[in-house]
Amino acid sequence: MSWKVKSNAFDLDTLLVEESLFFNGNGYIGIRGNLEEGLPPHAKTVQGSYINGFHDIVEIPYGEKLYGFPENQQKLLNIIDAQRLEIWVGKNGEREKVSLFSGEILHYERILHLDQGITERVLHWRSSQGIEIKINFVRLVSFKTRELFQQYVTLTPLSENIPIQIISHVNGDVQNFADQSDPRVASGDSKRLKINNLAWIKDSSYVEVEAHTSKLRAAMLSHVKISASNASNEYKLSETSIQTVINFTLTQETFIDKRTFIGDSSRYEDLQKSLVSIKETVSHLPYEQLLNLQKEYVSSFWKNTDVLIDGDEYIQEAIRFNLYHLLQSAGQDGKTSIAAKGLSGEGYEGHYFWDTEIYLLPMFTLTNPKLARKLLYYRYSILDYARKRALEMGHSKGALYPWRTITGTECSSYYPAGTAQYHISADIAYSFIQYYLATDDIDFLKEFGAEVVIETARLWLEVGHYQGGYFKIDTVTGPDEYTAIVNNNYYTNVMAKYNLNWAIKVYQILQKEDPKYWQQLTDKISISTSELAAMEKAATTMYLPINQDLNINPQDDTFLQKEIWDFEGTPDDAYPLLLHYHPLTIYRYQVCKQADTVLAHFLVEDEQSEDIIKDSYDYYEKITTHDSSLSSCVFSMMGAKVGYIEKAYDYFLETARLDLDNLHGNTKDGLHMANMGGTWLAIVAGFGGLRLKENGLYFRPQLPKAWNGYSFHIQYKGRLLLITNNHDGFKVELLSGESINLYIWGKEYTVTNNSAVLLA
Amino acid sequence: MSWKVKSNAFDLDTLLVEESLFFNGNGYIGIRGNLEEGLPPHAKTVQGSYINGFHDIVEIPYGEKLYGFPENQQKLLNIIDAQRLEIWVGKNGEREKVSLFSGEILHYERILHLDQGITERVLHWRSSQGIEIKINFVRLVSFKTRELFQQYVTLTPLSENIPIQIISHVNGDVQNFADQSDPRVASGDSKRLKINNLAWIKDSSYVEVEAHTSKLRAAMLSHVKISASNASNEYKLSETSIQTVINFTLTQETFIDKRTFIGDSSRYEDLQKSLVSIKETVSHLPYEQLLNLQKEYVSSFWKNTDVLIDGDEYIQEAIRFNLYHLLQSAGQDGKTSIAAKGLSGEGYEGHYFWDTEIYLLPMFTLTNPKLARKLLYYRYSILDYARKRALEMGHSKGALYPWRTITGTECSSYYPAGTAQYHISADIAYSFIQYYLATDDIDFLKEFGAEVVIETARLWLEVGHYQGGYFKIDTVTGPDEYTAIVNNNYYTNVMAKYNLNWAIKVYQILQKEDPKYWQQLTDKISISTSELAAMEKAATTMYLPINQDLNINPQDDTFLQKEIWDFEGTPDDAYPLLLHYHPLTIYRYQVCKQADTVLAHFLVEDEQSEDIIKDSYDYYEKITTHDSSLSSCVFSMMGAKVGYIEKAYDYFLETARLDLDNLHGNTKDGLHMANMGGTWLAIVAGFGGLRLKENGLYFRPQLPKAWNGYSFHIQYKGRLLLITNNHDGFKVELLSGESINLYIWGKEYTVTNNSAVLLA
Repeated sequence: MSWKVKSNAFDLDTLLVEESLFFNGNGYIGIRGNLEEGLPPHAKTVQGSYINGFHDIVEIPYGEKLYGFPENQQKLLNIIDAQRLEIWVGKNGEREKVSLFSGEILHYERILHLDQGITERVLHWRSSQGIEIKINFVRLVSFKTRELFQQYVTLTPLSENIPIQIISHVNGDVQNFADQSDPRVASGDSKRLKINNLAWIKDSSYVEVEAHTSKLRAAMLSHVKISASNASNEYKLSETSIQTVINFTLTQETFIDKRTFIGDSSRYEDLQKSLVSIKETVSHLPYEQLLNLQKEYVSSFWKNTDVLIDGDEYIQEAIRFNLYHLLQSAGQDGKTSIAAKGLSGEGYEGHYFWDTEIYLLPMFTLTNPKLARKLLYYRYSILDYARKRALEMGHSKGALYPWRTITGTECSSYYPAGTAQYHISADIAYSFIQYYLATDDIDFLKEFGAEVVIETARLWLEVGHYQGGYFKIDTVTGPDEYTAIVNNNYYTNVMAKYNLNWAIKVYQILQKEDPKYWQQLTDKISISTSELAAMEKAATTMYLPINQDLNINPQDDTFLQKEIWDFEGTPDDAYPLLLHYHPLTIYRYQVCKQADTVLAHFLVEDEQSEDIIKDSYDYYEKITTHDSSLSSCVFSMMGAKVGYIEKAYDYFLETARLDLDNLHGNTKDGLHMANMGGTWLAIVAGFGGLRLKENGLYFRPQLPKAWNGYSFHIQYKGRLLLITNNHDGFKVELLSGESINLYIWGKEYTVTNNSAVLLA
Repeated sequence: MSWKVKSNAFDLDTLLVEESLFFNGNGYIGIRGNLEEGLPPHAKTVQGSYINGFHDIVEIPYGEKLYGFPENQQKLLNIIDAQRLEIWVGKNGEREKVSLFSGEILHYERILHLDQGITERVLHWRSSQGIEIKINFVRLVSFKTRELFQQYVTLTPLSENIPIQIISHVNGDVQNFADQSDPRVASGDSKRLKINNLAWIKDSSYVEVEAHTSKLRAAMLSHVKISASNASNEYKLSETSIQTVINFTLTQETFIDKRTFIGDSSRYEDLQKSLVSIKETVSHLPYEQLLNLQKEYVSSFWKNTDVLIDGDEYIQEAIRFNLYHLLQSAGQDGKTSIAAKGLSGEGYEGHYFWDTEIYLLPMFTLTNPKLARKLLYYRYSILDYARKRALEMGHSKGALYPWRTITGTECSSYYPAGTAQYHISADIAYSFIQYYLATDDIDFLKEFGAEVVIETARLWLEVGHYQGGYFKIDTVTGPDEYTAIVNNNYYTNVMAKYNLNWAIKVYQILQKEDPKYWQQLTDKISISTSELAAMEKAATTMYLPINQDLNINPQDDTFLQKEIWDFEGTPDDAYPLLLHYHPLTIYRYQVCKQADTVLAHFLVEDEQSEDIIKDSYDYYEKITTHDSSLSSCVFSMMGAKVGYIEKAYDYFLETARLDLDNLHGNTKDGLHMANMGGTWLAIVAGFGGLRLKENGLYFRPQLPKAWNGYSFHIQYKGRLLLITNNHDGFKVELLSGESINLYIWGKEYTVTNNSAVLLA
């Protein structure tokens, strides 16, 4: 099976998209796939280098500002640009820059090596003067040394004695990309950094910048080494950038090794000293060795995470591509999470949403629990902000997590589709619970999970009320952003119920396992048994709307009373609707941007009968536009659940290659991380039918016609399992760990060490 | 009965409020009651002079901008300041400025002369050097010469030979008042004018300014004349202001006559020339004559409009005060309307709201139909903007009037309590219909009213839909801004029904009266009989929510399912709620900012039985905070309707002196015009029980205990009626015009010329 994603396009539109597709990252830093040599002037590009969570604080403007509207927000900053590495050929006075837009391209190819953790560009080029040269650019953003961004260039002369000039840049004069007209992209305030320091330190360029308001500092220390013996170096400093200019004559294969070390003040107080020291620690390692370390890391990732598709190379490529980019984007330091666009672009300002908990964590929880724990810890670390926000929103206690944030405060200025999405608190609790169900990690539950689950459960007691014997939750927005501010959103209520029930369970578990710890926790957060009883009562009486005639769960109390959107009268180019209709117009109709009730039926499936789940699927499918990239994967998973295996497959196709084929037209702003996680979910939870429940692991395996089979690994309570489903049947192998019971199509099986359960 | 409103306060807090209370205006210009001599440095003041509708265009900022959000808004500008007229006493080197904050105040009084149309300040002052002087400041903003603002100062020496220096300013360096933290006040962008021209023209100061974006120009031409023969004049020009400095020795009563002529480019292309010419036309008229002209105008206003209260001087003062300020604020040129704060301040950016149509027009319609016609014409003049807005909001036709505007485009950036208030279109149609019912003015209906009524009716066909045989209207906000984006708001639906029914009636009237004209109109706006039939069907099947158990009209489909706000747990200083709770929190509960269903029961009373109206009143009264100044007057009127005459009186008291006693604490930002109109309504439609219906004029007169009686005039279909209600009974006198039938407590009577109906 292939480990390469290739492209040989070099038209400007495709290059813009490939800046995202071929980005390099390691969870800490992200470098877009901009070209070393640059683009023609005025070509549209998002030239970007990012540090996860590195932000400035920007005032949010309002025409009419009401109580509790956030005053400012964080904004991921494009930091310093060290990508540029120009190659000029020819004698002084006749020099030509190697470029995709001059001379003659004899061959060009770009490759993402999924098994090596690098990207590569191969260029065979002839100048207008007839000078011929082959150039190979490799980029590596190290998983081993998180601060390292390496560019490794091989020059092979095909003409004799080629005069070469290399110009390496480190540029502090950068800004963020802005597009006022698209709410999904950042707007305004694009220049937020000042240059603190710009110096030549020993043999390296050093640029340090500082954000206007957050005062966070970022720096790059960049060094270029060349294998040519006849090279002469020269250094140029301007007020905003440093250039290293190297002249030599190319007579044989020659290597340029540019290493840029990137850091920020949230990690290192003395940035300059730290980066110099990190540089030293790898300075003795040649490129080959750094590459090997990278391969090792990536290889161990694939060992636990790879998903194999037998019979569809095209999809195989896509799945690996998606999984790899999830790895590249996931914060691993406990201080950061996964931004909506990962580290591939600036869309949604680098904010963290519920995407992480509902769409991305399942994959990490079941293949890399250690990393999952870091992502969960991030949410614990911002719990105090969530408590404060709950108070601001008029509640007397509890935790209301922000709709979008970096540091923990609410960054959404449009509350009907932001703060009103109270479900985010239940989603976060859900992800802690699912992690516990997958790992039995009682220590993590004690130290971090319990507090999050209980504080979020408290929120529901604050926001809900009793009516006619039911516990009801008014005036919230569910996941579907084409409907806002409603009463009894099914998704919210059922997730709140799960949240409340698990607050009780956490209490029971801790009481049993470590009553002393429970006592400490109750002292800390003042939880009483009467409050726990109130939670139990609310959960038991939680109102879950149901329509008997249609045999479905209505999305909310009034959803079914609205008129159905005129889909026939809506031209294709009027999608996504949010870019063509006022929100009031959209809210007026039965039309869903994304899975809402259908997603609830996935997350908490035992609350409804299979026929209600199926009829709901049928109903909502007709009125869902999938204008959100968080939708198709859910319809794929749930298609499999309700018996539409081929429909599930069709949705899966949309999911799998959404970015690779730029299906939403905005991959330039960054990759759709949630969708990428959704691809994995569609296979594992969709075709595999995997569910994590209190009493164990469940599968309902199915195989779409187009495939011969598929397989994936999961880690479950300390065991490593290999799951295979093909024409021979469904097989669960226990690769390591003790024997364990599991459920396949509702029937219990035991898989013992080094053995397998096989159902033909 | 007194015609004076007096104050002798000169603490800074009261002076700030009195800037609004003692403002002078004539519907075209408005001058706040700032002091001629100024305030101590850093004292809080809103120094303001305004021209109705004179605005700049300001970009509306958004954190997240969605489709159809208005890009910019108009903003009333504070123009040029010509109020300043300092009086210095004493010899050069020892000069002291006459001020309320220096020397000794032996007597101070401020008076609004309601019968003369002027304000006056009387000051008896002794300087720290012992110089004693009496000064009388009169201000007149002329109803006869709309461009004229006159300050007439009388100096009476009580010491001998007082050296006096007068400094008169005309200052172009002004800006708007801004307060980011209060959504009811303007925010940001406060400096929007540049000085175009600043010159000394003959004997006058001329300052012309231009707004940055609208390019509208405003100018003031100011001239100071003094009666002292020994005066020497000097003129000083800076880059932003002109000063006239006059020195003389005060030996006898001396008069200073400062006349400032104010104009703008929407009226006069050549501003300078026009103002010079207007100045000439009155230059021969002494102050006394200008004062007489003012008195004449005001006297004819009172003749038709005065309301008499027998037995409560305190209320009498308040009512006249309110009526007078309505006159001062009402645009009379057909290009302007009445801003939320009139011309008394900058609150709500000088925008026109539905306040005009529902709270203010009834008074003008029934006492001054000529002026009412001008206000209605303004709405006709912006009909094309309303058509365009309907298209922007996704409708295929119809007219959606903006929530707030000056020139006709939507200026609200917070749509849940702005654009979502679709009822504004029905409100405007309603005011055209009420005008027609009061006047039989068929020509106005033909030329302007018909088009407005039909285009607004069309909107309902666009926005509504059929469900279960009913016509329903989803996703709008009613008048109550503490509930937003709901389905089937009773107010909206019942007003839409009225609107639709009257579109049919207008068709029938015009078909009968002038079929040729109807044909022209149908050609112009492409109205078909099938569309009229659709309107009739929608009106007939309009869904009007009703709750049988409570015997009330629910405010909307889900209102009664929500929890009731915890009024007991809400401290007094947490009102108004909008300044202390996030809108989501407020929307979550049954709590009303203002009358909503109760207002609907006033406007369209025949849709419901009296017991439903009463039970609704009881229900909503308990959950209404009256945080809006549009609320108490409605609860007063409807209190009278449902039989709570003394409760009606209590609400009336809150209404009557809301600004005079600064009951909402924000009179500094301007007077509450809608509430002032509501005072009149509370008497005429409340205690008098007046209603305008298709088949005639209705009264249900009642008398609150506290009063001996009350009386008011109305103009009805060309007649002038005097209505009196006192312990002798209820009397309707026909002062002029032909005999007419009317209904008192449901019974029909005829009043003939020079006679009266008297019910003991």
